[in-house]
Amino acid sequence: MIEGLLARLREKKPLVHHITNMVTVNDCANVTLAIGALPVMAHAPEEVEEMAGAAQAVVLNIGTLSRQQVDAMILAGKAANSLGIPVILDPVGAGATGLRSRSAERILSEVKVCVVKGNSAEIGILAGKGGRIRGVESAEAAENMVEAAAEFARRYGAVAAVSGATDIITDGKRIAFVDNGHPMMGTITGTGCMLSSVVASFCGVEQDSFKAAVAAFVCFGLAGELAVSHPGARGPASFKTAFFDEIYNMTEEKIRHGMKARFENL
Amino acid sequence: MIEGLLARLREKKPLVHHITNMVTVNDCANVTLAIGALPVMAHAPEEVEEMAGAAQAVVLNIGTLSRQQVDAMILAGKAANSLGIPVILDPVGAGATGLRSRSAERILSEVKVCVVKGNSAEIGILAGKGGRIRGVESAEAAENMVEAAAEFARRYGAVAAVSGATDIITDGKRIAFVDNGHPMMGTITGTGCMLSSVVASFCGVEQDSFKAAVAAFVCFGLAGELAVSHPGARGPASFKTAFFDEIYNMTEEKIRHGMKARFENL
Amino acid sequence: MIEGLLARLREKKPLVHHITNMVTVNDCANVTLAIGALPVMAHAPEEVEEMAGAAQAVVLNIGTLSRQQVDAMILAGKAANSLGIPVILDPVGAGATGLRSRSAERILSEVKVCVVKGNSAEIGILAGKGGRIRGVESAEAAENMVEAAAEFARRYGAVAAVSGATDIITDGKRIAFVDNGHPMMGTITGTGCMLSSVVASFCGVEQDSFKAAVAAFVCFGLAGELAVSHPGARGPASFKTAFFDEIYNMTEEKIRHGMKARFENL
Repeated sequence: MIEGLLARLREKKPLVHHITNMVTVNDCANVTLAIGALPVMAHAPEEVEEMAGAAQAVVLNIGTLSRQQVDAMILAGKAANSLGIPVILDPVGAGATGLRSRSAERILSEVKVCVVKGNSAEIGILAGKGGRIRGVESAEAAENMVEAAAEFARRYGAVAAVSGATDIITDGKRIAFVDNGHPMMGTITGTGCMLSSVVASFCGVEQDSFKAAVAAFVCFGLAGELAVSHPGARGPASFKTAFFDEIYNMTEEKIRHGMKARFENL
Repeated sequence: MIEGLLARLREKKPLVHHITNMVTVNDCANVTLAIGALPVMAHAPEEVEEMAGAAQAVVLNIGTLSRQQVDAMILAGKAANSLGIPVILDPVGAGATGLRSRSAERILSEVKVCVVKGNSAEIGILAGKGGRIRGVESAEAAENMVEAAAEFARRYGAVAAVSGATDIITDGKRIAFVDNGHPMMGTITGTGCMLSSVVASFCGVEQDSFKAAVAAFVCFGLAGELAVSHPGARGPASFKTAFFDEIYNMTEEKIRHGMKARFENL
Repeated sequence: MIEGLLARLREKKPLVHHITNMVTVNDCANVTLAIGALPVMAHAPEEVEEMAGAAQAVVLNIGTLSRQQVDAMILAGKAANSLGIPVILDPVGAGATGLRSRSAERILSEVKVCVVKGNSAEIGILAGKGGRIRGVESAEAAENMVEAAAEFARRYGAVAAVSGATDIITDGKRIAFVDNGHPMMGTITGTGCMLSSVVASFCGVEQDSFKAAVAAFVCFGLAGELAVSHPGARGPASFKTAFFDEIYNMTEEKIRHGMKARFENL
C-alpha cells in the first residue's frame, strides 16, 4: 500500500508551504526536513498565493489563529486549489472556542481540502458527532469514532485522519487502523502539528491522499516507537531529540518491518 | 509548606492558558506538560475570554508584546478575574522600553493578578525602587530587593516572585528565600518565561498563591541542579534537554530531599 | 585577522536586538547567548527605536515578514543608523515572492546595512546576477557568485556574506573564502538565521564588519564540524544539541587550530 512512498518523497523533496501556529512552527519546519521535504512558512496576505503556488503541498494549521491569518489561509488554499496543489488542514482546538470551530468550518467550506488531520475530539465535533476538548487536547471522543470519521470524510470529500492510540484514517470508502506510536509522544507539545506536516510532505508526492496519510501516520508512529528505546531517552526532551533523529533515519525497510496497519472497506 | 502540591498538580492536570511571546512559547508549552499540567496558547481577541474561562490558570507574558496583544491580555485577565481563575503576570523587559513599563502597569491596574514573576530589575523598577535592565536581563537590582519585593506585593496585592541567585517570594506578609537553581539556567533563553508557566501550573491547583509560587520555584530550581549532573550535559543545549527531563521526572521525594528554602514573616 | 574577537565578544556581551521570524526566533536567541552575547526580541512599532538604540547591534530578518513588521524594521534600522549601531540584514527568501524581494530592497534603500547575510540565491537575485530559490533554500546560484557578491557589496556599500559549501564574504575590496562547516547543518531549519545572529554579535564588538562576518562564519562552521563528531550525534536533532554546545564551548584556541579561511584582494 505505501511501499516506495518514502523513497519518492526523498527523491522529489516537495516544498511544503505552512501557514501555522507560533507554538510548534519550528518543530514543523524541522520535521518536514527530517522526513525529506522542504518547509517554508509564509503568512502575509501579499505573498501567500505566490508561495502556495510554488509549493507541492500546503498546510493550514489554526493552532494560534487570528482572523487575519484565517483570511490568508483562504487565499493560500484557493490558490492551491486552482493549481491542483493538495491542501492539508489541522483544525487545532476546534470545539474549544467558537472562533476555532467557525474558522475550521469556514476553511472547509471555502477551500477544497484533501486531508484533515485532527484528534478524536476535533474530528468528532466537526463531524457533528460529539466529543469534548480541553484546550487543544481531546478529553472525550465521539461514541463511535469510525462512524464520525467516515461521516466527516463523506461530508467534506476529504480524508479524515484521526490521531489516537489507534489512528483512524478514512476517505469514506477505505479505512485504515494504524497502531504505530507510543504514549511518550503525548508528553511533548506539537506532535499533532508535526504529523500534519508529515502528511503534507507525503501528499506532495502522492495523489492518493489516503495512501499519503497512512504512510505519514506509520512513519511518524514508528519513529516514536523506535525513539523510546534509545538509551539516552529519559524524559520528554531527550525522547523528542531521539524522535526527530528516527524520522530522519526512517527507511523503507524499517517501515516494512515495523508497520502496524490493517485496512478495511467501509 | 509545599508537600503534596506536585502530586495534586499531576492528578488534576490544570489547563493553563497562555498569552505569551513568540520566542519561548514552545518551551512554555513543553514545560507546562513536563510539570504535569496542560498548556494552551490563544491570543485572538475573539477567543481569549472563552479560552481563559475554560482554564484553571492564565499566564500573561509581555516578552514580545504588541498593543493588540496587551488588549487581548486585558480581556483574558478580566474574564479570568470574574470567574476566580488565577492570573500570573510575567512583565518581561519592564523598564527596557516605555511600552513595556506602561503595558505592565496597565495590566496590573486593570487585572487582578495573583503572582507577578520577574527578575530583580523588572520587579524593582515596577515597585519604583530602582534597578537597571539590559534587553530582558537584569543588569542591576534595587538596593534592597526584599524591601522592593514587599513594596511591590503590598502595592498590587499580588505575590512578588523574584528570580535570582537567591529567589525572593513574598505576599507582603510572608517571605521565602529559595536557593535552588544553577547558573547554567542562565545560559538558555526563556527560563524566566518557563518558570512563570510552572508557577501558573501550581496556581491552577492551589489557592494560596504564595505556596504555589514557592513550590514552582523549588521544583524548577531543583530540576536545574539535577540536570547539571547529567553525564551528557556538556553545554546549554544538552543541559536544556536534561532540565526538561528532570522537570518531568520530579517527585515529591526529590523535593523533600532537595528543597533549599527558608521562610520568614515580614 | 580575527584573533581575539571571540574573547572581546564574551567580555563585552553586546546586546543584539532582533526583529525576526517566528520559525527560528528561539534558536536565534539561544545561539546569541551561546556565542556570548545577549539577545532581545522586540517588534512593536512603539518600542523598536528605543530597543534598537539600547543595543550594540540590530538584526533584521524577513523570514516571516509582514508589511507592518517591515515598517518596524525600517524604524529600528533608522534609529540604529542615527546612533552608529550596526544593522545586519538577513533577506530570507528574497526572490521567492515579490513581497520578499521588494521588502529586502526597501530595507536596503532606506537603512544603511553593514552586513547582508544570505544564501547564494538570495544574494545573487538581489545583486541582479541570477539564481533560483525554492521556498527559502537556494536551488541555483548565480553563474559567478564571487562577481555577484562583489557587485552586491559595491552596490549597497555593505559586506555581502554568502553561506554555502564554501562561504564567500566580501566588502567589495577584500574577499574571504571560508571552508568551515558541515552538510549536517543543512538538515536543521534556521542555521542561516542563527548565523546572522552570530554575525551581529561580532559586529557588536568589531567595527570592521568584514572581520566580524569572517569571525562569525568561522566560529559557526567550526562548531558544526566539531558537533558532527559527538558520539551522541545520530541525526539532525542530536546534531543540533551538540552544535549549540560547541558554539558555547568555542575558544580562541579551537579557532586557531580549526579555521579554514583564505583571503584575497579583489
